[in-house]
Amino acid sequence: MAHRVVVVGAGFGGLPCVRRLRGGPVEVTLVDRRNYHLFTPLLYQVASCLLNPSEIAAPLRKVLHGAPDVRFRLGEVTGVDLGERLVHLADGAALPYDDLVLSIGSTTNYFGNDAIASRALGLKDLGEALRLRNHVLRVLERAATTSDPDARRALLTFCIVGGGPTGVEYAGALAELVRLVLPREYPELDRGEVRIVLLEGADRVLSMFPASLSAYAARQLRRMGVDVRLDRLVASATESSVTTRDGEVIPTETFVWTAGVEPSPLAAGFGLPLDARGRVEVDEHLRVRGVPHVYAIGDVAAARDRRGGELPMVSPPAMQAGRYVARAILAGIDGRPTRRFRYVDKGTLATIGRQSAVGTVGRLRFRGFVGWVVWLAVHLWYLIGFENRVRVLLRWAWYYVRLDRPVRAIIRSAPDHSAR
Amino acid sequence: MAHRVVVVGAGFGGLPCVRRLRGGPVEVTLVDRRNYHLFTPLLYQVASCLLNPSEIAAPLRKVLHGAPDVRFRLGEVTGVDLGERLVHLADGAALPYDDLVLSIGSTTNYFGNDAIASRALGLKDLGEALRLRNHVLRVLERAATTSDPDARRALLTFCIVGGGPTGVEYAGALAELVRLVLPREYPELDRGEVRIVLLEGADRVLSMFPASLSAYAARQLRRMGVDVRLDRLVASATESSVTTRDGEVIPTETFVWTAGVEPSPLAAGFGLPLDARGRVEVDEHLRVRGVPHVYAIGDVAAARDRRGGELPMVSPPAMQAGRYVARAILAGIDGRPTRRFRYVDKGTLATIGRQSAVGTVGRLRFRGFVGWVVWLAVHLWYLIGFENRVRVLLRWAWYYVRLDRPVRAIIRSAPDHSAR
Repeated sequence: MAHRVVVVGAGFGGLPCVRRLRGGPVEVTLVDRRNYHLFTPLLYQVASCLLNPSEIAAPLRKVLHGAPDVRFRLGEVTGVDLGERLVHLADGAALPYDDLVLSIGSTTNYFGNDAIASRALGLKDLGEALRLRNHVLRVLERAATTSDPDARRALLTFCIVGGGPTGVEYAGALAELVRLVLPREYPELDRGEVRIVLLEGADRVLSMFPASLSAYAARQLRRMGVDVRLDRLVASATESSVTTRDGEVIPTETFVWTAGVEPSPLAAGFGLPLDARGRVEVDEHLRVRGVPHVYAIGDVAAARDRRGGELPMVSPPAMQAGRYVARAILAGIDGRPTRRFRYVDKGTLATIGRQSAVGTVGRLRFRGFVGWVVWLAVHLWYLIGFENRVRVLLRWAWYYVRLDRPVRAIIRSAPDHSAR
Repeated sequence: MAHRVVVVGAGFGGLPCVRRLRGGPVEVTLVDRRNYHLFTPLLYQVASCLLNPSEIAAPLRKVLHGAPDVRFRLGEVTGVDLGERLVHLADGAALPYDDLVLSIGSTTNYFGNDAIASRALGLKDLGEALRLRNHVLRVLERAATTSDPDARRALLTFCIVGGGPTGVEYAGALAELVRLVLPREYPELDRGEVRIVLLEGADRVLSMFPASLSAYAARQLRRMGVDVRLDRLVASATESSVTTRDGEVIPTETFVWTAGVEPSPLAAGFGLPLDARGRVEVDEHLRVRGVPHVYAIGDVAAARDRRGGELPMVSPPAMQAGRYVARAILAGIDGRPTRRFRYVDKGTLATIGRQSAVGTVGRLRFRGFVGWVVWLAVHLWYLIGFENRVRVLLRWAWYYVRLDRPVRAIIRSAPDHSAR
């Protein structure tokens, strides 16, 4: 019987792992609660009306097709029996494994603040991106028919919390959406009434970049009309306002939260050793400490770099770890030893708006147009599927020239029948 | 003060009306509860994973941009004050009018059968098309992990009720989806297990076409593997079966209802004269009988052709009526008389699958590949927006060559916050 590998999670850790396992003497089952791989770095472009959801969501069966040794299983993992080596799913199935790879990712971190969690609009999955898109479009429509100045002010103020890449990229994209679409299509609204506020708790945005690039990004955002406020933490939120810790009340109907992620809380239920931040403890081969035949990778795992620092919760470490674990499993079957996992930092990129991005590769620093071209190339390269690449490139090219945002219909799926 | 025209409904009646009014000595307000014009003839291609929602949904503000005399108003009409000439919206606003055009369309007709209404999946708006797409993809996933033969049979049986264009086109597209995607991507499933049943109450499908084309369409569908059953009416439905009036029980988890439409029930609440079928009674100038300054067009209006027959509830009469009423309103402002409305039947088209369609134009009859090319050209021509045309054409060309169905992610918007 072939060696059975179950990979849980088809994100940036799980999918490269499965792809690298293909063709080996293994039977692979990839489990995910969604039927697609999501290219999260472009989520904000769905939220800002530039891309269709399907352009950043690759159906997993399509991605895997032609790999007879890989099965896809749609399902929610509810538990892992570490003794019997079984993965339990919500629909009652139990998947036996010889090796298990957990790549279950992260969720938005509201730092235990329920008022924030219940009011905030997240930007971490496609459902949230669509909700945010629909919300912004509805708020503009409501503002267009509201004459009360206070109500109008709250409707036209967009408060984004978190100066990391997601917050910065979404703030820039929203500013462009407003600049391109409002003057042409909302004669009822004055662009000058719109306020986009970006609140960051630290003293600079994009803190993973060198300080000079952070300063550049903030400058660019301000030039685009974004009100960048540093050293600001959010204390609470209501339906129509956000209050900072220093007591300022910002009237807003749109409160976007991108201020942090935490490892998937699922891991805690699996009986695995966790560190203080809730990440699964792994050894230098990405094996879960003290638990044979279980690997953890990506955001959920507390992997470390050569200097002992924790790896950031972004996609490149997850991708490298996924490929590493696949190699380690295949080597294990052959009885070959594997060297320890070594993360190679290839650099970081973030875009601020059309024609402007910041990036580092080793000691190199890019910014402005050059950074943007690098950003474009890298994101197209990593987008799963040739067709998606072509379509997204055409879309970008088209809208770069036409200055338009095409995906602006407020669309929701009809509610499911309760019985289905 | 300019003459105020309120047009309710941005479908195939309302939008051409507004476009024709543009530039006239009028102030036009277009009201719709959605922010987009929907190209309904291609809805089934969204439901069958070929097109993105945004490709058949044109944002109304974009369609209207550059027309300073036309305002768009997102809102739900709750009532019309015929004496004071006011349109009331759900958000409390009241829009005054000098002339009112009602183009509020139709809804799915379940013929008063609550069991059917609560179980059926409709295919009349984008929300329903997305629900149907997600449902079919989920059913295939569930079938892939179900070994019980009865459960599997119900999961892999797709029951479509109604042999009109929507039912025929969706049945054909679903058969193609199954043929293209199943063998490649669902190794757990055998294509031979899939049953697509098309139930039609009359003795032929596409009853608006000549009998020879109906027969051709049924033949083509059967060749594609669709089980076409004529003279079958549905009596009831449960979660996992459909029962016909002659007592047959068809186990199925997918019950699609395309068997009829009825005029929007909103009209009844407006105090307008209705005919026995619930359509608003109009004179030969499409004015609502006995109600000054109110026009009704499209599916909701009981307009008649030269021979006194009722116009069918399809898009061409609505489009012609929309343009006619715009001309009539402009003529009325100038004090010019208008000739009575005359519907010109330009023909009918329906597609059965890739490379096959039926159509009539006057006495001409098309079928097969020629019909399909005509179908393609006509549908591209009427798609609103140049970009959508280009994108849909590229999409069709690409997938015609690649034989793929790209839009297969199961995506739903996150639930709105109750407070928003």
